[in-house]
Order: sequence, then C-alpha cells, then structure tokens
Amino acid sequence: MPPDPFDLIDTPALLLDEARMMRNIDRLSARAAALGVRLRPHVKTAKSDAVARRLLGGPDGAATVSTLAEAEALHAAGYRDILYAVGIAPQKLPRVQALRAEGCNLMVLLDSAAQAEALTACHPPVPALIEIDCDGHRGGLRPEDPALVVLGRTLHAAGCLAGVMTHAGESYGVSGPQAHAAFAEQERRAVVMAAEALRAAGLPCPVVSVGSTPTAHAAQDLTGVTELRAGVYVFFDLVMAGIGVCSTDDIALSVLTTVIGHQRDKGWILVDAGWMALSRDRGTAAQAVDQGYGLVCDAMGRVLPDLIVASANQEHGIIACRPGSGANLPDLPVGTRLRLLPNHACATAAQHAGYHVLPATGGPAAFWPRFGGW
Amino acid sequence: MPPDPFDLIDTPALLLDEARMMRNIDRLSARAAALGVRLRPHVKTAKSDAVARRLLGGPDGAATVSTLAEAEALHAAGYRDILYAVGIAPQKLPRVQALRAEGCNLMVLLDSAAQAEALTACHPPVPALIEIDCDGHRGGLRPEDPALVVLGRTLHAAGCLAGVMTHAGESYGVSGPQAHAAFAEQERRAVVMAAEALRAAGLPCPVVSVGSTPTAHAAQDLTGVTELRAGVYVFFDLVMAGIGVCSTDDIALSVLTTVIGHQRDKGWILVDAGWMALSRDRGTAAQAVDQGYGLVCDAMGRVLPDLIVASANQEHGIIACRPGSGANLPDLPVGTRLRLLPNHACATAAQHAGYHVLPATGGPAAFWPRFGGW
Repeated sequence: MPPDPFDLIDTPALLLDEARMMRNIDRLSARAAALGVRLRPHVKTAKSDAVARRLLGGPDGAATVSTLAEAEALHAAGYRDILYAVGIAPQKLPRVQALRAEGCNLMVLLDSAAQAEALTACHPPVPALIEIDCDGHRGGLRPEDPALVVLGRTLHAAGCLAGVMTHAGESYGVSGPQAHAAFAEQERRAVVMAAEALRAAGLPCPVVSVGSTPTAHAAQDLTGVTELRAGVYVFFDLVMAGIGVCSTDDIALSVLTTVIGHQRDKGWILVDAGWMALSRDRGTAAQAVDQGYGLVCDAMGRVLPDLIVASANQEHGIIACRPGSGANLPDLPVGTRLRLLPNHACATAAQHAGYHVLPATGGPAAFWPRFGGW
Repeated sequence: MPPDPFDLIDTPALLLDEARMMRNIDRLSARAAALGVRLRPHVKTAKSDAVARRLLGGPDGAATVSTLAEAEALHAAGYRDILYAVGIAPQKLPRVQALRAEGCNLMVLLDSAAQAEALTACHPPVPALIEIDCDGHRGGLRPEDPALVVLGRTLHAAGCLAGVMTHAGESYGVSGPQAHAAFAEQERRAVVMAAEALRAAGLPCPVVSVGSTPTAHAAQDLTGVTELRAGVYVFFDLVMAGIGVCSTDDIALSVLTTVIGHQRDKGWILVDAGWMALSRDRGTAAQAVDQGYGLVCDAMGRVLPDLIVASANQEHGIIACRPGSGANLPDLPVGTRLRLLPNHACATAAQHAGYHVLPATGGPAAFWPRFGGW
C-alpha cells in the first residue's frame, strides 16, 4: 500500500482530492461546450488561487464571485472578467470603482431603482446585470414585471446595462435529472423572456446568464442564453449527491479527523472534528437520506456504510450508525484516522484556512491557502 | 446623536460592544468569588488576545481551550495555566510536550486506557484530568465506573494524575435558573463523587473542575469543587437569552449588515449577511422562541421587535416578521444598516477574522483580530 500522504497532518484538517476535482471541472466544461454557452464558474466555494487557476483556465476565464474580497483576490491574481453576483449595496460602489479603475471588468447585480440610482451616479459607468426571479427563491424582478423595462431604461441611459441573470436556488430542493432539467428550462425561459422584454423596448441585452449546479448539469437546451454559472460542482458534496447530481465518489473534499473516545453502550465514537471543522450545515436533514454532519470514510477515503456524524459540538463529532440502518459499529480504536464527507462543501471549506491537497500526479500533499472575509 | 463609530466599516462585519462584554465578565467573576472557586474561562468563544486579557485578568489567569492552536496562541501571549478540554488524541502529544517544554503548564483531558497509555509514555509527565460524564452528553466516565480508579492508578503511577472535570452540556436544553441550578448540582455531585472515589483509593485529586455557562450562572453551592469553567458568557447570544441566562441587552456581539433589496409581496427584506457572516447555527430552532438566523436591531443596536433573519444563503439574509407575530414589516430602504444578534456567539464569531470593537471608553472603533485553526 502506498504511504498515506496525509499521515503527518494534524487533525482536524481539510483534504482535497485534486484528481476528483479535475474530473468535476472537466465534466461541466464539456457540458457547457456541448450546450454552446460560456461557463462562468463561481469561485465562492473554493476561494483559492490554485483552484481558480484550474477552474477558470487562465486569466481570460470568466468568474462569478459572492464578495468583493473574492473579486479583489482574483483581480490580484490576474483575472479581469468578474461578476459580483449579490445585489449591490450602494456603500460598496467605491470598491467596485477602484477595481474597475485598475482594469478589472467587474460587473454588478441589482433589481431596484434605489440601487440603479446609486450606480448611475458613478463615473465612469459600472456595468450591471438585472437580477431576474425565476422561482421565488430570493431576489430579482419577475420577467413580466413592468419595473424591468423601467430599470433597463435607467441603466441604459447611464451606459450601465449589461444584461440579465437568474439563479434557480429552488433546484436544490428537488431530485434527479428530470426535475433539474425542468428547473433549467424555468431559468432559461425567465431570463430569455426578460432579455426579450428589454430588447422589445429598444434596449441592449448582451449578457443572458443562468445557472446553479443542479440545473447546469441537467440543462437540455440553452437557446438564448449566453453564459452558465455554477459553483459547488468543483468539489461536490453530500447535498448534491443526495439529489442525484453526483455520486459520493465524486466528492473531492473531506475533513480528516482522529478518534478520541467511545461511549460504547450508546454506540458512539467520538472524533476531534466538530462543527468548527465541519460547519453547522445540515443540508441533508431535509433529504431522503439524512447524513447528519457528514458521512464517514476510512483514512484512504473509502465510505464506511451507514456510519455518520450523528451530532457535533464545537470540537467534538459523535459518530454513530445511521438510525434504522441495522449497521454494526466498527471497531475504531482511539487514534484511528477517518475522513468525513461534508454536507455542503462551501460551508465546510469556509471553516478552514486552506486545503491539504492530494495531487492528481501523486507525490506529497500540497497546501493551498483560501482567501476569506468581505 | 453621537456619530456611529461603525459608519465607515464595510458590511457584513462582526461588531463587539466592549462595555457589555465587561459587564458579562464582571458578573461571572463576582459569582465565582462568591462561590469560593477559581474561574477558568474558556477562550474558544473569543479566540482573541485582547479579549483574553480582559477575560483572564493577566498572565496568572487560568484558561480553558478547545484546540492546541488556542493554547499555542495564549502561551505566545504570556499565559501559562491552560487546560485543553477536548479528549487528547495520541498524535497531538508532541505539540503538548513542546508547549510544556517552553514553560506552559498545559493540562490535557482523557477518559480511556488507550489515551492513558500514550500519555504515560511521555517524559517528562504531562498532567491530565479524567473526564467525568455527569449527564450523558458526550465523553467521560460515569463517577461510579470502576474504570475510573483503574485509570487514576495508571495516571498516578506515571505522575500524570491532576484531577477530574465535567461539563453539563445538557444544561443548554433546559430553561431558567432553577433548572440550571439542578444541572449545576448534578455536575458538582458527579465530579465530587469521582474525586472521592480516587481519594478513597489513595490517589490524589487536586483539581475538581465543573462548568458550562448556564450552570456557572445558576450554581448555588460548589462544595468540593476547585474551579469553574464557562465560555460563551463573555459575549452571550440568543441561545443563552432563550434559556434565561441573559437578556438580549447583554449580547455583546452582532453582525453589521446592509439592506440590498426587497420582495415586498412576500414581506422580505434582503441583506448582505448570509450564513457566511452569521454561521449556519440554528440553536434557537428548538427553543420556545425561534430566532431564525438572528434577531434584527437598528444600526445603533436597538432590537426591532419580531423582526428576524428568516432564512440565509451564503451571502444573503432574508429578513421577515416572525411567523404569527402580526408585526408589520418596517420600511428599511436599500442601503439601511442593521445589526443582527447571533444565535450562537462561538459559531458566528468563528466566521470572521476579527472584531470591530465599540470601546467601553468611547472613541473610534478598534479592530481585534481572532486566531483560528487547529
């Protein structure tokens, strides 16, 4: 057996399997190419230069970010085409302008006259996408809302109208490619209808942007769409496996942990990864299979069937058999090292300063730092 | 009205009201003095040199930590008396020994023969407390378990037996001073019984340690106990307010956020603090009053009644009236700044690089960095 490259790493620690990550990246890149749209991956999951390099394919790659701190980090790393995909707060415009003044083509997002008023006071103009609500999930205007064209006119008059975008956040709540394809079509229809409404009013709409990880992997036809966004697919996680977008073998991220105790009469194994290392995310709680705070694997990453992190304190995880599974608790003595697959890769990764990477080419583990904050 | 000291801070950001924090610190210090026990505050909530200085009262102060990284940071800041209160993984002993070799009196925790075997192989000896289970919450030996004295003998023979400790984690699940006092007595009884069992076997037991924030504030009598631990009381939070340990006016921590949009037909106000800024902790979900992802205050910290963060995405919070409250959604235009009180201070603080501090003496905001990792 080859030596464990993570043998010398203190626990808990965040592990990244580069080969799995590259497979995930290549899978969606191929899909986007087949669908004839540009891919604009979301960097909010990884927040890492080294991952961004692989995800965006070089400085001409288009990126989506969830914070201005991500945009600043990407721009410092040489990227120029960035969409900040959270509705803009007027107070953040000076930082947006500063990035643009340095040559970063940063676009912002908005859905209200108040935001447009702040934006159109900026000189030189800052390009904006109008957020379209396709599923009632969060922000955005409905494509049939007359406010859309009014907003479009305001933005266009100031040279700020870049297009429209939507995100089917509700697609996370349904399972299987058919259900996800239906949401993909819902995204497409809403945003194309919005683009057509703007164009019918004589306004330009060059960017027509859709996406979420479930819909991006299931979309059958993206006619009228110019770009596709997705984020968590770079690592995948148990929530995505639970709705059939990936298998557990695709999950590139895990938390390395060590057994520190037992309560044998209760069927508990205590480990040194609690919610601080795993996050408080319980995204599988509402799914068909509740994975607790994570699914347990051995130190080499092989899933131990029906063994989950049943509960978590700050620095303690309590491993137990999945209720009703009839599984037997394996003998895992104090000092045994395990890997835990996360419910939600974005949340778990954010609890760590960086990734201990199992390189795709083999060899010793590398460390890739994360950037955080706002 | 005085100028807002947080006016120039970008959102989302973590705010700390130093005057409230000092009131919380002084309150428990006075209680520990009245009960005749030494206080060993837990640094896992704040993870900050500046807070530790106020919490521990100087380099002779006793500290509890949840990670070796905290112990290393405290030792670098001059503290010498530290309890690492998570069951020791054998692989972590070299770091423990390194700290002790540098003059840090670091104690560890264990409850098994496997851990004792690893510990007693260390030279010079590393002092350990035996973890006692007082309420079935997590790790530890029951005080009547014959394994306790066997473990005590093993440790004592190697010069490692320092005492016993317990933590009534289940006290978080009950409400009011009477219920918490009952758990405090349960902690005391369990750990004093364990100490007596060791002493009856001719073993020393100098340290008898109890504590959790609810029990520490409610304990009526700590006869036989030598030290009291508590952590989250330094900031307090909605979970502690929900079980009556503090009021919302005692909560020293909040997240500053900005309104970025509305879905008025749904009664939603969107803000730029999602779970990345608030954490995924939903600790009030099982309480009498569910606070969602946080309770909303105006920019000066005054609670807006029945307004909560009803749901959260990574960088979006959705504010709405508490279901069933009959409250009216206030008019909070885009750009309005708000403060959000957290469910769980340990979890929310961990999402941030540091604290923007409203100094107790007035004046401009300070920034106190956090230390993290393991």
